[in-house]
Amino acid sequence: MLESDFKYIIDTFFTLFSMVLIIFMVPGFAMLEAGLVRTKNVTSVLTINVMIYAVASMAFLLIGYDLAFSSWENDSISKWAAFMFQMAFVGKTINIMSGGVSERVRIIPLAIFAVFMGGIIYPSVVNISWGADFLDATILDINMYDLAGSTVIHSTGGWALLAAIITMGPRRGRYINGKIRVIPASNIPLVVLGAFLLWIGWFGFNGGSVGSISSVENANLVAKTIMNTNTAGLAGAIIAGSLMYVRYKLFDITMVLNGALGGLVAVTAGPDLYDIYTPIIIGLIGGALVVFAVPLFDKIQLDDPVGALSVHLVNGIWGTLAVGIFVEKISFLNQLKGVLVVGFFVFFVSFIVLFLINKISTFRAEDDAQLEGMDVNECGVEAYPEFKRAI
Amino acid sequence: MLESDFKYIIDTFFTLFSMVLIIFMVPGFAMLEAGLVRTKNVTSVLTINVMIYAVASMAFLLIGYDLAFSSWENDSISKWAAFMFQMAFVGKTINIMSGGVSERVRIIPLAIFAVFMGGIIYPSVVNISWGADFLDATILDINMYDLAGSTVIHSTGGWALLAAIITMGPRRGRYINGKIRVIPASNIPLVVLGAFLLWIGWFGFNGGSVGSISSVENANLVAKTIMNTNTAGLAGAIIAGSLMYVRYKLFDITMVLNGALGGLVAVTAGPDLYDIYTPIIIGLIGGALVVFAVPLFDKIQLDDPVGALSVHLVNGIWGTLAVGIFVEKISFLNQLKGVLVVGFFVFFVSFIVLFLINKISTFRAEDDAQLEGMDVNECGVEAYPEFKRAI
Amino acid sequence: MLESDFKYIIDTFFTLFSMVLIIFMVPGFAMLEAGLVRTKNVTSVLTINVMIYAVASMAFLLIGYDLAFSSWENDSISKWAAFMFQMAFVGKTINIMSGGVSERVRIIPLAIFAVFMGGIIYPSVVNISWGADFLDATILDINMYDLAGSTVIHSTGGWALLAAIITMGPRRGRYINGKIRVIPASNIPLVVLGAFLLWIGWFGFNGGSVGSISSVENANLVAKTIMNTNTAGLAGAIIAGSLMYVRYKLFDITMVLNGALGGLVAVTAGPDLYDIYTPIIIGLIGGALVVFAVPLFDKIQLDDPVGALSVHLVNGIWGTLAVGIFVEKISFLNQLKGVLVVGFFVFFVSFIVLFLINKISTFRAEDDAQLEGMDVNECGVEAYPEFKRAI
Repeated sequence: MLESDFKYIIDTFFTLFSMVLIIFMVPGFAMLEAGLVRTKNVTSVLTINVMIYAVASMAFLLIGYDLAFSSWENDSISKWAAFMFQMAFVGKTINIMSGGVSERVRIIPLAIFAVFMGGIIYPSVVNISWGADFLDATILDINMYDLAGSTVIHSTGGWALLAAIITMGPRRGRYINGKIRVIPASNIPLVVLGAFLLWIGWFGFNGGSVGSISSVENANLVAKTIMNTNTAGLAGAIIAGSLMYVRYKLFDITMVLNGALGGLVAVTAGPDLYDIYTPIIIGLIGGALVVFAVPLFDKIQLDDPVGALSVHLVNGIWGTLAVGIFVEKISFLNQLKGVLVVGFFVFFVSFIVLFLINKISTFRAEDDAQLEGMDVNECGVEAYPEFKRAI
Repeated sequence: MLESDFKYIIDTFFTLFSMVLIIFMVPGFAMLEAGLVRTKNVTSVLTINVMIYAVASMAFLLIGYDLAFSSWENDSISKWAAFMFQMAFVGKTINIMSGGVSERVRIIPLAIFAVFMGGIIYPSVVNISWGADFLDATILDINMYDLAGSTVIHSTGGWALLAAIITMGPRRGRYINGKIRVIPASNIPLVVLGAFLLWIGWFGFNGGSVGSISSVENANLVAKTIMNTNTAGLAGAIIAGSLMYVRYKLFDITMVLNGALGGLVAVTAGPDLYDIYTPIIIGLIGGALVVFAVPLFDKIQLDDPVGALSVHLVNGIWGTLAVGIFVEKISFLNQLKGVLVVGFFVFFVSFIVLFLINKISTFRAEDDAQLEGMDVNECGVEAYPEFKRAI
Repeated sequence: MLESDFKYIIDTFFTLFSMVLIIFMVPGFAMLEAGLVRTKNVTSVLTINVMIYAVASMAFLLIGYDLAFSSWENDSISKWAAFMFQMAFVGKTINIMSGGVSERVRIIPLAIFAVFMGGIIYPSVVNISWGADFLDATILDINMYDLAGSTVIHSTGGWALLAAIITMGPRRGRYINGKIRVIPASNIPLVVLGAFLLWIGWFGFNGGSVGSISSVENANLVAKTIMNTNTAGLAGAIIAGSLMYVRYKLFDITMVLNGALGGLVAVTAGPDLYDIYTPIIIGLIGGALVVFAVPLFDKIQLDDPVGALSVHLVNGIWGTLAVGIFVEKISFLNQLKGVLVVGFFVFFVSFIVLFLINKISTFRAEDDAQLEGMDVNECGVEAYPEFKRAI
């Protein structure tokens, strides 16, 4: 057998394996978000997760993939495996974004936005970051190092979310006379399940982004990438738990899990480049950033029911810059430039698209509909119709 | 290393990988069905899923595998991996069937039927469809193309279910004076989780059915199979959501998910043969079929609480015929013949076996037991004892 | 390509695949335990599962791995993959232990114990069982055969749990005047989901413990190991269900699942050595042991809310001895010696460590805190704040 054939077979298999792990992140996001919102909005959140995943993936299949990569041809692995791996990434971007506008967003306009996101916005980001032939290279060529997408996926989702939160405003009754009303999560086991499905998916997300396991060198790189990814998640959970305990003498599990996810986002830009101790530092800072950012966003009344801005936007930025700080051969300025270019691009394009869609079909549900719950108004299906409500 | 050894190793690994994905469908079916039924029947549904999976798999190990394949010997992969892959299929057939008789079926007779299903009925179907030496080839030889079992698995489960629904009748109070009482699902997050575990399992189901990934050609085939499988699921979800919205201005998530599953069932017969756009058509039709079939079965009072007839039987037939429509080299008549032969065989054999078991141990629980709930009467364990019931 | 390079690549990939399956056991334990306890303690159980997994894994990274294996170097697979596989095992030991002290244990002292467990106790067990250079070989050299850890993982977790239960005593109000108060599980679907995630994880646990899939012989060994693992689980479920039905005319699903898990623990010591029928016997005995051990532990007032002693300790011992009974070339006495040496070591070291930690920070929550629920007192987050409680 030719060595090239061997590599093609193994790497196709490895890419499919990685893709499957990433697809576990779809129920992962769905369970996490369904657990974090109130009972009356659970079905809506789940329906959104399913519908936008479906339309964004379809848009990527029909339009986006060509835009991102110019060509379907591929020498090193099956082109269909390459597509599936990339398609799995699209869902992440859009699911990151949808969580943060839960409990007031309407499904139809969000599904329309998902088509733009999967068909145009995200593919454009991929093109300028990983593809490099879409916009004029002399001005915008981004030499940022971003292995698995701290910026390309997580910040992209985060910037689109920021534009969406500004467009939609906070949930009804969330901020009254400058006071923040605490709205507790309705189902903690779902939050934990969702977070761990995301965590496991990350092994495919980052490990698969190495792109090949078919040489001794690459096998080592994949394994180190997965190990470092995990380590940052552990560190993020530990610091978030510790900070909560120091401050409140209580372990807030939602914060512990968001700390873990923050660490995972932060390590995503360069897990292949670090030694095995650096991810501890990156994860500790990532988890701490979540703990401090969550109340900060609330202070400026950017209402994000699941903490997605803190986890994905803040740590997407931190993680991308961290590569420039901890890895000698990587230029901090290039990393910063990448963060800024992608940030400006995604935020403004998203803002314009959101603005235009909003003219046709309002994103924000009426206050009455929010009060009654999105489930009844948008889905006609209650999440737990038999469980009597205490509040 | 010999090329044949390389292939043996890689394909054994690939088969085990695929098998693991399929096993995720066991909790997938369990969660889907537990979410769709009423609180008072949740433990019963879960117990059934576990017990019939266990006894059917054991029957397949002790009797069925020999009957299906005549021999355990295997040249191309480890015979134990081959067994595990096939055993994972058995569970599907029986779990498809059990969901549709939820909320009135008793565990003991169903477990006895599962032994027949895993030990004799399903293995016979495999033998005449994929094995070809059980019944006289001159009369019944089936040249149907059915890569991963639109007919062999899904319709088989569906026909057995049809026989079972006829044997058992509808749930108490479901049809009163020709009116249909709507019975809402009790736990929507479980439905979503279950559907996605099934979706992910399908990658192993269909991808693994290619049988080998150890050549460049096969690696491409596996990747295309997985991609096409996924595409049909996306299309099924999109059409079901759209149709529900057009008709009711509401997104019914249970229909969206059943639409996705319908698309997945439909593509299962030939995902390796299609180009990448055909699965969109197959999935759109598959999802639409679910939306139209669900009320139709209710009209003729075939009471199927989870929509399994619409998803698995209707789309199993559609998917098998679709290969004859969309793939030039496949004979439509052979596909039709396969659908009919397997359908008649499974329906009648199941009906007779169900009839005989029913004489010894009645399938249908008494009306009083149904009213009180199957959990208390069959399991002695309530699913959510602490949650006060609103209805 | 060199054959050694091929093996390195395939076995690294296979180890990562197995590791990912084992990591699914983390949410597996979390869901199982969250489903088995009362609503008021669910968040606490989940927080414990997350926090002790994080700190034990970090302790293993910083201290334990060196202690267990002396060296990070590795010729046959990537050392980072080897680490991740071993780290995934650490979480099991500690999660086995935490479940059994649910509903009264405080988080801080348990997290401290987890650091000792992941950093010192478990690595020492690995060293004397699988490493063999820590303690003086002439006295303690253990020639026990224990492929994937019936003793090294499951009994180790079980002995530590026994020490913990003795240290902490039963839950408030569990045994009153010698009467046992039955405390029902609060969420059965989570129990089923958790059990199946564990079951699937076991394929990686035992299959991965073969250590290599890169020869025809090893591919067969891995496949047979996975098949035999599964068979024992099936047998355990079947016998537990049958015994419950014979005795109570009811199928207690929690007992059925614990029976399956008991069978899986029991087969773990030697699934590669058995023919395909022996695991049926091992699993039948394993499942039956669970059914008889659960009431027995209650009789002697060792309060174990999830049945972990019966599943992991009793079957860990049974499974290790079973290799000596069913496999000719394995000495029963060596197996017994291994069980005893590891048992004494883990029990006493754990007991001393627990005793010392208990002096600084009491493990057992006050009766009032237990009455109100651990969630409010330790986490400040209720698991299901909107669901009105019936009891």
